[in-house]
Amino acid sequence: MTNRSGKFITVEGCEGVGKSTQIRLLREYCAAHGIDAVFTREPGGTPIADKIRALILDPANAEMVALTELFLYAASRSQHTAELIVPALAAGKTVFCDRYTDSTLAYQGFARGLDKEIIRRLNAWAMGGTTDGTTIDYTLFIDLPPREGFLRKGGADPSDRMDSQNIDFHERVYAGFCAIAKSEPQRFIPVSGRGTEREVHERLVAALKERSFIQ
Amino acid sequence: MTNRSGKFITVEGCEGVGKSTQIRLLREYCAAHGIDAVFTREPGGTPIADKIRALILDPANAEMVALTELFLYAASRSQHTAELIVPALAAGKTVFCDRYTDSTLAYQGFARGLDKEIIRRLNAWAMGGTTDGTTIDYTLFIDLPPREGFLRKGGADPSDRMDSQNIDFHERVYAGFCAIAKSEPQRFIPVSGRGTEREVHERLVAALKERSFIQ
Repeated sequence: MTNRSGKFITVEGCEGVGKSTQIRLLREYCAAHGIDAVFTREPGGTPIADKIRALILDPANAEMVALTELFLYAASRSQHTAELIVPALAAGKTVFCDRYTDSTLAYQGFARGLDKEIIRRLNAWAMGGTTDGTTIDYTLFIDLPPREGFLRKGGADPSDRMDSQNIDFHERVYAGFCAIAKSEPQRFIPVSGRGTEREVHERLVAALKERSFIQ
Repeated sequence: MTNRSGKFITVEGCEGVGKSTQIRLLREYCAAHGIDAVFTREPGGTPIADKIRALILDPANAEMVALTELFLYAASRSQHTAELIVPALAAGKTVFCDRYTDSTLAYQGFARGLDKEIIRRLNAWAMGGTTDGTTIDYTLFIDLPPREGFLRKGGADPSDRMDSQNIDFHERVYAGFCAIAKSEPQRFIPVSGRGTEREVHERLVAALKERSFIQ
């Protein structure tokens, strides 16, 4: 990407691993340490992308075919990338994104069985946005097997169409993340999600410091 | 496609060529002649696809980047194809669709300048839907240059985000349709949009009869 000075960090993990909590703690850390960071999430992240997110997650849309869901993720991502992520990186900010391309590969590819090559192409196009393409500097994968995550969360949330999938589905998602970790060991870093919130937070901060993404 | 006995006919053309009127006349013709036909349109065609259509056409979404629009068309198309077109063809019905893949190539490719190879791939994937892919048997292109169409319509409709593009945009769309007609002369058939509604209708019926798509 041209004109880029900020770092782009994505946060991935299965349901119930405490991702939202960890992102809140990272946000507090950045605020306390004067780090100019933007926190965003997928699907969504801009007004148009949020409307697409609402379509994807609405349980009323039960007839949605897997390919339509995949294209909607790509639509949300291209809007979010072009409108928010690329300008923030160009302005030198650190961008933390809750779920990004790896979630699509894990959920739609590994778990739903859609063609992974199609997903990789869609991801690359969506990241190209309206510029010459962005890249992820670093992905924090909060590593906790789905059975442990669901136990912690106290079960799935039936009002969320994604959450209401069965446990086998989430096991396939987890296997997908583990496969990505193996194939891209420089970028996609598993950090154990076991232990207290504070323990996991300290592991994440240590991982970011080690690679000089935060001070 | 397996289990297919019906014919799939798409209708294309620039704004203001009288496409809606011609489709209504074709529908009346089919009803009067006992032809078991389904009439549908894009974007949209099913409840989920219609929600996607609303996002695409809403003038409030002015910040939408071209690639997001393209992915939304693909999302609408894959849902419409899998949920409505493929089952109707399998049931032996003749399906008439108001705009389909050629509109995406003409509008997003030729007119907006998005990569045509990406569009062709997205179109093919969306047509694959959840089955082993469908094909268009025949496309009726109502051939009328945009300046004539706009004059007939009495100007563009500013409440429609697509319609409110300038005339140069529509000239590029028209050039796109003409290029498709040249590259696929067996499938994509220009029928003159000049003259009265009835004259154009009779040309369309003659074109369909000639190829035995209707009796």
